[in-house]
Amino acid sequence: MPSNPDWVKKLKPASPQGTDLLAEERAKSNANVDQLAEFLFTKKTLEQRDNLIKILSSEQVFDKSQNYYQGREDRILTSLARGKRLQQLTEKHRWSTQEFEHAIQLMGEASPLSMHYKMFMPTIREQGTPEQHKLFLEKAQKFEIIGCYAQTELGHGSNVRGLETTATWNPEDKTFTIHSPALTASKWWIGTLGKVANYAAVMAQLIVKGKALGPHPFIVPIRDLKTHEPLPNVHIGDIGPKFGFNTMDNGFLLFNNVKVPHVNMLSRFSRVDPNTSAYTRPPTPALVYGTLTYVRSTIVLESGGVLARGVTIATRYCAVRRQFQDLDAQGKVGENQVLNYTMVQYRLLPLLAATFALHFTGRNMITLYEENQKRLAAGGPAPGSNDAKRRPGPEETDAGPDLLADLHSTSCALKSYASTVAAEGLEVCRRACGGHGYSSFSGIGSYYADYLPTVTWEGDNYMLTQQVARYLLKSARSVLTGKAAPNDTTRFLKAFLARQDVGAAFDVLGSDDELVDAFAWRVAYLTFDALKKRDEEKQSWNSLLVDFYRLSTAHAQYMVVKSFRDALASNAPGVDAETKKILHALYKLFSLHTLEKEASEFFSSAATTIKQISLARKQVMKLLEEVRPHAVRLVDAWKFPDWQLDSSLGRYDGKVYEDMFYRASELNPLNDVVFDSNPNSPHLLKKDNRAKSKL
Amino acid sequence: MPSNPDWVKKLKPASPQGTDLLAEERAKSNANVDQLAEFLFTKKTLEQRDNLIKILSSEQVFDKSQNYYQGREDRILTSLARGKRLQQLTEKHRWSTQEFEHAIQLMGEASPLSMHYKMFMPTIREQGTPEQHKLFLEKAQKFEIIGCYAQTELGHGSNVRGLETTATWNPEDKTFTIHSPALTASKWWIGTLGKVANYAAVMAQLIVKGKALGPHPFIVPIRDLKTHEPLPNVHIGDIGPKFGFNTMDNGFLLFNNVKVPHVNMLSRFSRVDPNTSAYTRPPTPALVYGTLTYVRSTIVLESGGVLARGVTIATRYCAVRRQFQDLDAQGKVGENQVLNYTMVQYRLLPLLAATFALHFTGRNMITLYEENQKRLAAGGPAPGSNDAKRRPGPEETDAGPDLLADLHSTSCALKSYASTVAAEGLEVCRRACGGHGYSSFSGIGSYYADYLPTVTWEGDNYMLTQQVARYLLKSARSVLTGKAAPNDTTRFLKAFLARQDVGAAFDVLGSDDELVDAFAWRVAYLTFDALKKRDEEKQSWNSLLVDFYRLSTAHAQYMVVKSFRDALASNAPGVDAETKKILHALYKLFSLHTLEKEASEFFSSAATTIKQISLARKQVMKLLEEVRPHAVRLVDAWKFPDWQLDSSLGRYDGKVYEDMFYRASELNPLNDVVFDSNPNSPHLLKKDNRAKSKL
Repeated sequence: MPSNPDWVKKLKPASPQGTDLLAEERAKSNANVDQLAEFLFTKKTLEQRDNLIKILSSEQVFDKSQNYYQGREDRILTSLARGKRLQQLTEKHRWSTQEFEHAIQLMGEASPLSMHYKMFMPTIREQGTPEQHKLFLEKAQKFEIIGCYAQTELGHGSNVRGLETTATWNPEDKTFTIHSPALTASKWWIGTLGKVANYAAVMAQLIVKGKALGPHPFIVPIRDLKTHEPLPNVHIGDIGPKFGFNTMDNGFLLFNNVKVPHVNMLSRFSRVDPNTSAYTRPPTPALVYGTLTYVRSTIVLESGGVLARGVTIATRYCAVRRQFQDLDAQGKVGENQVLNYTMVQYRLLPLLAATFALHFTGRNMITLYEENQKRLAAGGPAPGSNDAKRRPGPEETDAGPDLLADLHSTSCALKSYASTVAAEGLEVCRRACGGHGYSSFSGIGSYYADYLPTVTWEGDNYMLTQQVARYLLKSARSVLTGKAAPNDTTRFLKAFLARQDVGAAFDVLGSDDELVDAFAWRVAYLTFDALKKRDEEKQSWNSLLVDFYRLSTAHAQYMVVKSFRDALASNAPGVDAETKKILHALYKLFSLHTLEKEASEFFSSAATTIKQISLARKQVMKLLEEVRPHAVRLVDAWKFPDWQLDSSLGRYDGKVYEDMFYRASELNPLNDVVFDSNPNSPHLLKKDNRAKSKL
Repeated sequence: MPSNPDWVKKLKPASPQGTDLLAEERAKSNANVDQLAEFLFTKKTLEQRDNLIKILSSEQVFDKSQNYYQGREDRILTSLARGKRLQQLTEKHRWSTQEFEHAIQLMGEASPLSMHYKMFMPTIREQGTPEQHKLFLEKAQKFEIIGCYAQTELGHGSNVRGLETTATWNPEDKTFTIHSPALTASKWWIGTLGKVANYAAVMAQLIVKGKALGPHPFIVPIRDLKTHEPLPNVHIGDIGPKFGFNTMDNGFLLFNNVKVPHVNMLSRFSRVDPNTSAYTRPPTPALVYGTLTYVRSTIVLESGGVLARGVTIATRYCAVRRQFQDLDAQGKVGENQVLNYTMVQYRLLPLLAATFALHFTGRNMITLYEENQKRLAAGGPAPGSNDAKRRPGPEETDAGPDLLADLHSTSCALKSYASTVAAEGLEVCRRACGGHGYSSFSGIGSYYADYLPTVTWEGDNYMLTQQVARYLLKSARSVLTGKAAPNDTTRFLKAFLARQDVGAAFDVLGSDDELVDAFAWRVAYLTFDALKKRDEEKQSWNSLLVDFYRLSTAHAQYMVVKSFRDALASNAPGVDAETKKILHALYKLFSLHTLEKEASEFFSSAATTIKQISLARKQVMKLLEEVRPHAVRLVDAWKFPDWQLDSSLGRYDGKVYEDMFYRASELNPLNDVVFDSNPNSPHLLKKDNRAKSKL
């Protein structure tokens, strides 16, 4: 667009300048940003981040300046170009998987190539035989074929057993016929399928000699390797625009009796004998949890960082933005920083505390998972059976070892809770930015929209809570029958039983540990309450779903509070005493704010008295005051580069208004046309200064 | 895109069909849809709706089929074309303002022309002299000029007194100089400004003889009437993309010492004498509330319908969607309708109840407003002084009559609460649709995104609660000093005082009226609690903002519960007994669900016992069961035409999957290109079948 006239170029924001305000904020806190950052991420990861940013930000294809303006088609093509370049860079710099994923995180968008790496290749790797690895995986690694993972169908989401696509064994020519018997059988939501993939790992109901044997994975070519047009009797397309995630080509896929050879059924575990047509089942269903537990654990780990991005933007902007004068301030002039208002603090600072709480919890979760993997590697069977994607029914018998079941339940409860907190917290951050939060330049809106599927995928956040309840009920039964395995869950359930006739007397305000105990008490109370309804009153499973949701949330909150306390108890190596003190205030703030929000469960379970709740409420207000001066430095500790945040409001240097104005007046392509707005004119444009389409 | 192959065209969804499922739903309920619809809207409005739909849906320009695919530029130009055509139709059919607005609601998008009607013309009408009406309003009516209302600035939102734009009186040539002294003075967020308007009503700080006299409205030409290019020393543009509302050209505007003649200051109330330079103040600040109170009342009225749109879509889809088998169901085959799960019911049905509750409340609010207007017309001064847009400070003395103050406070509390419930409820509905809720074809996502500004504009939902608290504290003081005006607020405050040493004993489960009383008791308790903190303990205003927010929410919930009860007590003329019974269940569901959610305030105020809360929780589960069979018919009563909903999931006929597939495979322009996805190929496309740009 035409550049700004000279008189506009000379304008500055009214004083005080954002830069000065943020500098003052940083000056008045003694939180040690670098120590905290290293405690959160390790020095190595921070250096990796700097290095990646340097590489990415120096290439034109990764330039983000048109992201917010582009429509769907431009966005997805730009993203494809970036995905291709990223692949080249990965080869050039020999990036590890971790570096590659870190780069994608910094780019901040889903690549339409990503399901090739994330789902297609791992599926072959985990579920294919060595022969199949040679046939498919090696080609996939060299991008001779590009694949996706096709499970969900138009009419079938979470319930994998309901899938309609069939794979019928033909003994005469030793092939499988892949077929979509109904419209609802159409594969749907499949990432990388809509426009990019030429192969698919298709989950289909295996049928052998007329007998349905449940869903199994098949490798199916879907597009011509030369022309990239769909193969005969294969119908594919992009499913259309979504609330977010529009750089991804989620697709649909239908088959009309397409034959694939015997070798295309991934058969490391289940297989059909090509000569006898005999079907072999996987040896044990014990490890159905493995892969998904890991995926959920990473969601928990990421949730803190996801939320921290929104909290960083909102905190910085609320320190720059000024509105109204303080009513009781005598003699002070000028408007007050929005961050000084308690209503803003009350919305933002508990979320700031939650970023740390979730991060420590996620780290814990990953450690537990890795320990368990080691244990399994030393003896148990390998993770990732061909049923890895199958969700067990809510009361299905769990044949796995206790630790695995505990880990599975923990990952379900935490995934559900952490991703809900992160998603809803982002929206709170966006609104805390006032009117400008609604501008795309805030950087929160699109990020929120892109994050939202996380509350649904890898186990819907409501559905998952049934599995948590199932585990807790089972644990409670084992405690009652004296057959409990020794773990933390049975420990606090026993502790509750031991004191239920004495009552609780937790010093929730005076003791960090008893605060954790009060959270555990509430979980135990809700568990035995649900158990009574289910086992004694014989209430239906369906009638208890709301109770189960509450129970799972309570359990997750307990684990988060506990993880935060444990992280502090670890003595936070490398962090100075002043900074530890601030972290401790965040721990109290997170825990007491949660307690206050869930007050009714705390006193109906008699974990606290009503008086304690009202004192907790007071304490929360005091903690807000205590944390307030450190807010900007605390978000600085997350070390988000401006390039990653891509936000006018969240700029490290506080040049909020300059950046808003720059993006509106100099980058906005809509300002390259002149409208014809007269209702009686048949034209819409008077003038069009746009360069022709870039693609 | 290429049409579907024949084998695809033959596919149907797996049985049972959505159409049959919805037919069954409708058959099993005896709720009278037509009676209910007429009770909600009147027969006349329903006929108007049918008539408008017929006209709109028959014109190509209003075709919605590409809405979800278009990028920003196409969307806004399409919307401009629709706005123009709507203006022509309005003239042709001589539509009333109400019909015109109804048409816009059915179209479901903000027109870039709309601030001309909604803000520019009303500002001149209300604040201009007859001479100014002739000069500006008549031209505006004929579209010889097109205007916007420019108040908000880049650095200044709610606090109008902080506006930086100046209008300096020049006695020598009898002009005003409009000027932007800083970048933060740039007008920002102004609808219809970015691309469409050639005039602006600009709020600027009036300066006469060096003295600042506060914000006043000026009519300023901004674009050339022929070329539509900005006038000299005026800098204008569109502010860029937003989270939603992208059919609107929210703009920015800067002035470099632009002169306008004396007559361009709207001076029905305040004026500068052109000869003596003397400034005349408005006679009374009593009516500063008028216009905004009305605008807020309409937001309350619309909130029920806004939410009902999401609830309609989610309810119908949850009746069509089936997932998992009922665990306890013996012998039943097939998957269970999602609407049968209590966790889904618990999320959706209280929102269904809320749609009615908010609708009745809004209707009440409008009636009160109109009664007050009549009363004023009979004696008091006319509404809409030039300070109509100014928000009074939180503890500013209120010189208006009591009824007006009460109405003002009520509108603030309800606007804040109702728009929050509607916005958040829409997102709950979207998520209740599971994975498909994330598709644009759900119709909820974009609607939610477009609605979101409502929680911020016309008084930010947090800010407003301070005014409610101010009013309640003042009422409480008047009750304590025995000088209370007789109204409902002082009535329940007095009732609380009278019984505070006796305690409450409300039969919240057994009596509709006492349920309302319990809500009032809680408000009174919170009011006197806040009063004590403010007046006795001398706590700062800022430290009480969180209490004030809770107080305002409690007050709004009381009024909504009361309005619902009153609507039922009116005996719902024209509605049969069976249907009334269902409405009554909705009343209980809304009230008890709210009580349960806010449980801790109900027992800390001793409005209920802990036992009553746990009974209320049980009762809510029973009410869900009672309402469940009527859910589809109850949403049918809102009578949204499919054309308005524009949703695959919410179709009246239940053809959910057919419509999803149609939109993805036949309307999606992304399927007209073939990607080149090989990372080593420099090309992004292998083939492009798109028709060239339509604009």
